[in-house]
Amino acid sequence: MSEAKTDNRVSEIFELFYKHLNNFLAEANPNHEEYTEFVKWADCLGRTGELPLFMDVFIESSVLKNMYSDKPGTEPSLLGPYYVEGAPILEKPYKLPMRENEKGEKLVFSGKVTDVDGKPLANTLVDMWQDDADGYYSSFDSEAPPYNLRGRFYTDENGYFEVETIVPIPYQIPTGGPTGEFLKMIDQHPYRPAHLHIMFKHKGYETLITQVFFEGDEWLETDVADGVRPSLMTKLHDHGDHKRASLDFAMRYDD
Amino acid sequence: MSEAKTDNRVSEIFELFYKHLNNFLAEANPNHEEYTEFVKWADCLGRTGELPLFMDVFIESSVLKNMYSDKPGTEPSLLGPYYVEGAPILEKPYKLPMRENEKGEKLVFSGKVTDVDGKPLANTLVDMWQDDADGYYSSFDSEAPPYNLRGRFYTDENGYFEVETIVPIPYQIPTGGPTGEFLKMIDQHPYRPAHLHIMFKHKGYETLITQVFFEGDEWLETDVADGVRPSLMTKLHDHGDHKRASLDFAMRYDD
Repeated sequence: MSEAKTDNRVSEIFELFYKHLNNFLAEANPNHEEYTEFVKWADCLGRTGELPLFMDVFIESSVLKNMYSDKPGTEPSLLGPYYVEGAPILEKPYKLPMRENEKGEKLVFSGKVTDVDGKPLANTLVDMWQDDADGYYSSFDSEAPPYNLRGRFYTDENGYFEVETIVPIPYQIPTGGPTGEFLKMIDQHPYRPAHLHIMFKHKGYETLITQVFFEGDEWLETDVADGVRPSLMTKLHDHGDHKRASLDFAMRYDD
Repeated sequence: MSEAKTDNRVSEIFELFYKHLNNFLAEANPNHEEYTEFVKWADCLGRTGELPLFMDVFIESSVLKNMYSDKPGTEPSLLGPYYVEGAPILEKPYKLPMRENEKGEKLVFSGKVTDVDGKPLANTLVDMWQDDADGYYSSFDSEAPPYNLRGRFYTDENGYFEVETIVPIPYQIPTGGPTGEFLKMIDQHPYRPAHLHIMFKHKGYETLITQVFFEGDEWLETDVADGVRPSLMTKLHDHGDHKRASLDFAMRYDD
């Protein structure tokens, strides 16, 4: 039966999955009706294309916490289902692509990228994406053009970057489908605190996928996707016609 | 936030799921790339509508074994994704609906239905379904009319029934989609041993959903869906122009 595609790692993970599934079943004791109800719901989740949303909201943070607890360097947070590859490479001064009358408060976000020992990492590729002032991500249920509020740029010789964008707003995950149905059943609101998504790539270092949060946001403690980490918090400073915020990031050496 | 649909049992199960998920992650240590690869595959599984197939093949037996290990009465086996409600109620002598030139060997299957103490259960509703001689279930990728080889009938005053059908053949689960891709990765063949699906309903008793297997089948030991139980085995007896097989069933009192 063996074919080219056999994958020992998949078999290993699947065996461990069965072991812990059986532990779960022994404790939760679902009956057959609960099982069939679950399959019906999961089928709906799958057919509507909401499975990545559900996984990223409810599972991804656990995977990341398991990987990175007690490791030095900036903590990762979830990639989420709204990342789009190939965002435009920006020219200085960096400004995320936006519509002519893009709603929202102007934000200048800056930071410094170093390794875990504090050495600045020049020419690090920074990939940023976020929601707009209506809470939508371009290319996902949004009327904005592709790559709106998505862009890539590089740190300077001191590992520093500064980019103009708008202040993100708290994001409500879609509630009209099976994921929303599930939220109601577990009595959980659908909000994520406002956040910037940010990814860093530098040769010789582990790609860092994380998010930036802002002090004072009402959903920090109850983020539906459990993405908030103390080290990812920053503060919005008022500068009259715009806000400023900054955060530093430390990348891990590649294994 | 609380709404009418809040469901404490779902919350309870979800908390236990998280607990065992974290145990699983701590042991399996998936990295972020493995996570995103898995989500991509699971999204494909969901969108193609194969999620119920995957669940029933890889999860349902574990749920049933957890429920019924060490309980008296006939062991359940998986319902599977091919059950269709509302099959025709048959008139005596019972014969599953089939095409005029239905391929396959004629089979007369009989049995006796009792409670766990051996008392015959008259007028038990028996619901039977199976694959045809090409390995297809009606209404699923089959050219047969709806309800072909599906029928419902009743036990007599002694709890006895006898029905004419054809001998089922080993069934190959669909391999062209993400489930098949997964089977290749874990080096597992896609076959189930030949089986009859059979469900019993009787007021005051727990509905019994199970399957009947036949001695000598080459896939008994390695059934992809892990549905075989020693107590669900019977033997095909040759009667010249047809085969005969029988098995007795014991239903549990309702809780």
